[in-house]
Amino acid sequence: MLNIAITAGGTSEPIDGVRRLTNVSTGLLGWYCLEAILDYFCARKRSDFRITYILTDTAFRKVLSEKQRSFVDFIPVSDAESVYHAVDALTKRVPVDFFIHSMAISDFTLAYVASTEELAKEINSLPPYSSDAGSAVREVLENPANRYSLTEKIPSDRNIILGLKRTQKVIPLIKQNNPDTFLVGFKLLKDVPEEELIRVANRLAGENGCDMVFANELAQLGENNHRGVLTRSGEVVDRPVGKKQIAEAIVREMMKQGGNK
Amino acid sequence: MLNIAITAGGTSEPIDGVRRLTNVSTGLLGWYCLEAILDYFCARKRSDFRITYILTDTAFRKVLSEKQRSFVDFIPVSDAESVYHAVDALTKRVPVDFFIHSMAISDFTLAYVASTEELAKEINSLPPYSSDAGSAVREVLENPANRYSLTEKIPSDRNIILGLKRTQKVIPLIKQNNPDTFLVGFKLLKDVPEEELIRVANRLAGENGCDMVFANELAQLGENNHRGVLTRSGEVVDRPVGKKQIAEAIVREMMKQGGNK
Repeated sequence: MLNIAITAGGTSEPIDGVRRLTNVSTGLLGWYCLEAILDYFCARKRSDFRITYILTDTAFRKVLSEKQRSFVDFIPVSDAESVYHAVDALTKRVPVDFFIHSMAISDFTLAYVASTEELAKEINSLPPYSSDAGSAVREVLENPANRYSLTEKIPSDRNIILGLKRTQKVIPLIKQNNPDTFLVGFKLLKDVPEEELIRVANRLAGENGCDMVFANELAQLGENNHRGVLTRSGEVVDRPVGKKQIAEAIVREMMKQGGNK
Repeated sequence: MLNIAITAGGTSEPIDGVRRLTNVSTGLLGWYCLEAILDYFCARKRSDFRITYILTDTAFRKVLSEKQRSFVDFIPVSDAESVYHAVDALTKRVPVDFFIHSMAISDFTLAYVASTEELAKEINSLPPYSSDAGSAVREVLENPANRYSLTEKIPSDRNIILGLKRTQKVIPLIKQNNPDTFLVGFKLLKDVPEEELIRVANRLAGENGCDMVFANELAQLGENNHRGVLTRSGEVVDRPVGKKQIAEAIVREMMKQGGNK
């Protein structure tokens, strides 16, 4: 039995009841990977596999046939923290053989919202002491006393400051919980040449134990002209063009290793 | 000929190429208003009307029949500024008879993104001077010299501060450009009793010349249990329950006045 996990879509962090901080991602690439895997096993008349599909509510989703659906468990998530818990629970419970981690997870979540005016007053009331390299000011900027309650809707009559703190990274969890998982990571960069894509892909692979990385560039994300490099052990193994073709290349390369488990 | 305009959905402000600040709104209420208006004229076999539907890309949208579509112009928008320009251009070009302004428009847009650490250092390097009530600090908080370029993807290795500034309000434009428009405004509040909803609805009506206001409360927004108060000239004229019923109540009340123009 093969266990496969896919994450797809972009997370979104709550600010107040009506505002959110969102990571833009259609979830299309994750969905096409799901379809490519279903096609792979269907073509081989195999049913000894199970797919867990972790997705945000804005992620692209089509209707599957009843047969296809019987192989897939859907796990809905929303913000970065919910993804962390879903992936942690899954990888502790199930020995995942292949993990395609295509979700765009927010690097930041809300620490506080404050009015710019009140925050300035709070900082200004600190004792004058400029030889601490700003650490007293920084403490206020990280954690001010004067802030809006996050249970109320933020007033719109004054400029505001959003303090954001880093979220816990999800990707390192996967190999920590199960070193045998074959992990496919994704990296999106902006305005860089291919050499830089490859360099960053290799760093991601090294830091988080990715067995394969698809690295792409923000300007090249269209449905049919989406392109990037697929790397494995530091080498470019494919340069697929088009979202479907990218998904098929990922699944094909992935299945070369252990698809017959 | 009657000219009707509807705005629907939630706007979203760009932060960098992959992150946005979004206002959560399904756009369902606006869509149901569109359907209720089409039904109203269809039932009366009238074709002397034109609807302009201004919507964000996340707003709910169904496929209309070819006949229905012939009465509607769709204008796509994204952030608060694009709504401002679309509404300004429309209301200057067309004598809008009825304007249903249901869109959730961001009150804030991005001024800058800075690392918390760098911002603290910049503030800390100001000359000590605490009797200015924080105005020097505030100037830095509104407009720091050390900030990330908004054309690059924000680094994720440090906590960050988002400085937000107020957007230009759209609703006052409508009556400024055309005092004869019958304007329906919306107000969403959180955790308030009905008396407060009515009070705020009346204030909105007074400030922006709304002829009718639908005021609702955040906890009561579900498809079938969505409820609120419809006010006109300071009085509650209806308490519809359910999104379709709300839309029908709005259109019914609106058409009492001038639907036979």
